Amino acid sequence: MLRTMTFDRLPTPCALVDLDRLERNAAAMSERARRLGVRLRPHVKTHKCVEAARIQTAGEHGGITVSTLAEARAFADAGFADITWAVPVALDRLGECAELVRRTYRFRLLVDHPRAAAELEAFAAAHGLRFEVLLEVDCGHHRSGVDPGDPAAVRLAGAIHSSPDLDLAGILTHAGQSYRCGSRTEAAEVARHERDVMAAFAGRLRAASIAVTEVSVGSTPTVTAADDLSGVTEVRPGNYLFFDVFQAAIGSCRLDEVAFSVLATVIGVYPERRELVVNAGALALSKDPGPVHVDPDCGFGVAVDPTDQRPIPGLRVASISQEHGVLRSDPPLDRRWQPGSRLRILPNHSCLAAACFDRFHVVRASEVVDEWRPVRGW
Amino acid sequence: MLRTMTFDRLPTPCALVDLDRLERNAAAMSERARRLGVRLRPHVKTHKCVEAARIQTAGEHGGITVSTLAEARAFADAGFADITWAVPVALDRLGECAELVRRTYRFRLLVDHPRAAAELEAFAAAHGLRFEVLLEVDCGHHRSGVDPGDPAAVRLAGAIHSSPDLDLAGILTHAGQSYRCGSRTEAAEVARHERDVMAAFAGRLRAASIAVTEVSVGSTPTVTAADDLSGVTEVRPGNYLFFDVFQAAIGSCRLDEVAFSVLATVIGVYPERRELVVNAGALALSKDPGPVHVDPDCGFGVAVDPTDQRPIPGLRVASISQEHGVLRSDPPLDRRWQPGSRLRILPNHSCLAAACFDRFHVVRASEVVDEWRPVRGW
Repeated sequence: MLRTMTFDRLPTPCALVDLDRLERNAAAMSERARRLGVRLRPHVKTHKCVEAARIQTAGEHGGITVSTLAEARAFADAGFADITWAVPVALDRLGECAELVRRTYRFRLLVDHPRAAAELEAFAAAHGLRFEVLLEVDCGHHRSGVDPGDPAAVRLAGAIHSSPDLDLAGILTHAGQSYRCGSRTEAAEVARHERDVMAAFAGRLRAASIAVTEVSVGSTPTVTAADDLSGVTEVRPGNYLFFDVFQAAIGSCRLDEVAFSVLATVIGVYPERRELVVNAGALALSKDPGPVHVDPDCGFGVAVDPTDQRPIPGLRVASISQEHGVLRSDPPLDRRWQPGSRLRILPNHSCLAAACFDRFHVVRASEVVDEWRPVRGW
Repeated sequence: MLRTMTFDRLPTPCALVDLDRLERNAAAMSERARRLGVRLRPHVKTHKCVEAARIQTAGEHGGITVSTLAEARAFADAGFADITWAVPVALDRLGECAELVRRTYRFRLLVDHPRAAAELEAFAAAHGLRFEVLLEVDCGHHRSGVDPGDPAAVRLAGAIHSSPDLDLAGILTHAGQSYRCGSRTEAAEVARHERDVMAAFAGRLRAASIAVTEVSVGSTPTVTAADDLSGVTEVRPGNYLFFDVFQAAIGSCRLDEVAFSVLATVIGVYPERRELVVNAGALALSKDPGPVHVDPDCGFGVAVDPTDQRPIPGLRVASISQEHGVLRSDPPLDRRWQPGSRLRILPNHSCLAAACFDRFHVVRASEVVDEWRPVRGW
């Protein structure tokens, strides 16, 4: 814990986490999961901080979702004992997976290919352990997962279910196509489809005498918009804790709910072309292009007042290079902008922007109340 | 130094630096600078590793260019004593700049605004030191720098020159517009313009009795393509040590000169849609869109054979999310691709991809010969 200071003393660029907003986002998602009758297994990949995960899981069963083994290890070190690695298992990392199985109460892996299942089985048999496996299902994102309409998907579930060295924990999907939505109404439609596909597939497996305990769905846009999750057992949203410009653009949140921002200093003022340059570029904001399908001119984030976090009218992050962010003003540049002026930028994609930083300054209003260190690497 | 191993033992995703290629790139640039009659002050922002900078500066005067104060401090710790911070100075960081002035033989700052010059002057006077300043000039990139045709630019140079607390070291530009070129011929044209603008502006300042010692130009595309740098004293290319897919696309290098790659493992195989998924996504490759102005279908990097680094025909990195890279094949997917298969990806933009990693595995052919730790943060 730092002694009290206000964030205007922090050197820039730096990452600010608005704790009031984050706590509200966490509480709202817990309440939403309760109303929908599903368990919340938050994805920690957005923030990768133990402190944030503790807030997310307060009052929940404590299970989390991770995107890397580095996260799994760090969160296991901090006492999290029920972890799902929600990326198809990389077969070069089985030794580390086995270690996590031994160290935790529950460590679940994703599989969507018979070869991966066979390798897991062989490794488990050779090392005297069991792997708990979720079969990943493609519900329309077409990134990974089995095609639930393909008989091979049922065969693979059956092979895992009947393996002496594997436990089929259930099925899991991520409706990533929800990121192509333009509104909450569209996301609700994707959420219905996600649920329908998973409930139907679980039914088909059960009809084939394959036990399916967990039916896990994900994505902040769908969980935020879903009206009915009958047949689903758990949800795995992650981004909602920070939110970002993308989520606001597609209706998952309001801009004033975004809890992560980058504090930057003006290092160039060019009234003749109505531009400012700030010291936050691609290595502080990421090059995520943002919600261009909704707003082709969205740029690389939303510039907000450093104190009240209201968007600065007419100013947008027009382009970025490694350490420069170029902000363009529609009206002539306000004379208040001088080298040394400060602003905050709400990023397009908080998962990628947060990954640029080795520490987050946690603030309530202007006061720095904590410093969190995210996990990095794999 | 690690004991000898081959990189096929490394867990993925990980960053590989091809030392043979890197050494050739370094030697070629040193030779190029010598032939052009300019000093080489390499930019270290691409790799941020002391070991790489030692290779770049071997046989040179040892001066380097940095993009952050964190780099400046780490390289000063390692004995580099002549450092230019080639981003306009952020006025909230003057205390750290003063520290670097005291610790090094030469630490130069960029200024392009009278307010920044005045603040530097006041700080220097108050703290009993002098700041060595380069006036940044806009030679057509329109990101930062003074307009060399504006009389205010000469006035600002004069004010710095005549300040008792500042030294005008010279003028500096970065022809970043060279990244919009489609060929080496076009880059050569930008290089001529960059030189012409800087030589003319230096002449104008000298005519106004303002001494200009350093005339510094930059950018890998222009330095690689330049045929005459008369009037220029130093060049500051950085990317050339690694190169990348972007530089190859615009003619700065060949693909077989790219010295940085990401080793990845196949985690999904989808023959019906001719796609593979690997465990290298936006947090391993960055979301840099690459040379879309030359090749709209360039995707997010070039997949190459892990051993001989030849591009894999018909396979491209079609899309990426946080930890997934989706590769699409034009022909039906080769049956050799299975979960656990490996490949290397040459990134679109090595500066941003390298920044994703906390360590680089340095290889000669398949042998891991060293491990480098890049500087991170600001």
